[in-house]
Amino acid sequence: MKELVFGHQNPDTDAIVAAKAYSYLQNKLGKDTEAVALGNPNEETKFVLAHFNEPAPRVISSAKAEVDAVMLVDHNEAQQSVSDLKDVTVTHVIDHHRIANFETAAPLYYHAEPVGCSSTIVYKEFESAGVEIPAKLAGLMLSAIISDTLLFKSPTTTKEDLKIGKQLAKIANVDYEKYGLEMLKAGTNLASKTEAE
Amino acid sequence: MKELVFGHQNPDTDAIVAAKAYSYLQNKLGKDTEAVALGNPNEETKFVLAHFNEPAPRVISSAKAEVDAVMLVDHNEAQQSVSDLKDVTVTHVIDHHRIANFETAAPLYYHAEPVGCSSTIVYKEFESAGVEIPAKLAGLMLSAIISDTLLFKSPTTTKEDLKIGKQLAKIANVDYEKYGLEMLKAGTNLASKTEAE
Ligand SMILES: [Mn+2]
Ligand SMILES: [Mn+2]
Ligand SMILES: [Mn+2]
Ligand SMILES: [Mn+2]
Repeated sequence: MKELVFGHQNPDTDAIVAAKAYSYLQNKLGKDTEAVALGNPNEETKFVLAHFNEPAPRVISSAKAEVDAVMLVDHNEAQQSVSDLKDVTVTHVIDHHRIANFETAAPLYYHAEPVGCSSTIVYKEFESAGVEIPAKLAGLMLSAIISDTLLFKSPTTTKEDLKIGKQLAKIANVDYEKYGLEMLKAGTNLASKTEAE
Repeated sequence: MKELVFGHQNPDTDAIVAAKAYSYLQNKLGKDTEAVALGNPNEETKFVLAHFNEPAPRVISSAKAEVDAVMLVDHNEAQQSVSDLKDVTVTHVIDHHRIANFETAAPLYYHAEPVGCSSTIVYKEFESAGVEIPAKLAGLMLSAIISDTLLFKSPTTTKEDLKIGKQLAKIANVDYEKYGLEMLKAGTNLASKTEAE
């Protein structure tokens, strides 16, 4: 039975990337999942996807129209999720936010940690499952961590975000300081604003 | 800052044992925690504690009277927890039940899986932390899994419960089939009833 995997509404880079990464892992483990999104990528995420030559995920407005079960990443609160969340079963959650306005009828897999980024937790899921992360996906996950932690400078950044970020940079063969600044700059859209002014 | 670790009201063997096991692990990892309980052990749990020469945990009726932060095992629903749960911060949850009536103000560590027993999940926490389980604790955790899965026969039993149960039996050097039947019999209190009749 196919399941959809998605992050929150008004997706940021972590919401898009953690869904792609967790769906990849679940499919490697034998599940049939598709990473989708609840909105179009923002400027920063567009830069990230273009940089790693990765397509934007399909945007959905209903889950129940397609599946009976879903996996949530980077959120859990119903008001941040798909509008018909109550009509489907949540089987997995990977998140780094507080838990609120979230309820299930059945036991589920829920992995949350108070770290800077959902993609940091997805990395740990790959590790414990013993599944290798392809270079492109590592680049995307690194981008999500840089985005959520503002290049490891936000107060929510943990030692684990930094350690895992560096490991992903190695796998992706990316100079994370240089790339990170370019990426954050693309997100603020300074370049195009300067041109337009 | 000390934290209390406890299972649900009217504790069963898993509620008592998972608290003891997770508190042991957290202390090994440098935290200052104490496993307590929200009620006295039932007949089955008394048998288990006596068998492994382990004291019953201290019973509390308030968390806030002692600490600012707590870790929950084997439950998450507020109505099953300590009466003043809303006055303390939940930093960790290890559980195998649905999520309902649970809300936090801040991000936390939450590890739930749809398996037969919380102690199965605690075992995985030991594994990923690389911490060894002492023989006595392994015997207690095996008892919790036998209790929750009715000796691996309940419909909630997973392959992982069985695999981990067998590994714990090996560490504890316990014949789990023989011990498990004795333990479940102690729980039904057949022996004492027969004597009394
Ligand atoms: Mn996000
Ligand atoms: Mn995030
Ligand atoms: Mn229980
Ligand atoms: Mn249990």
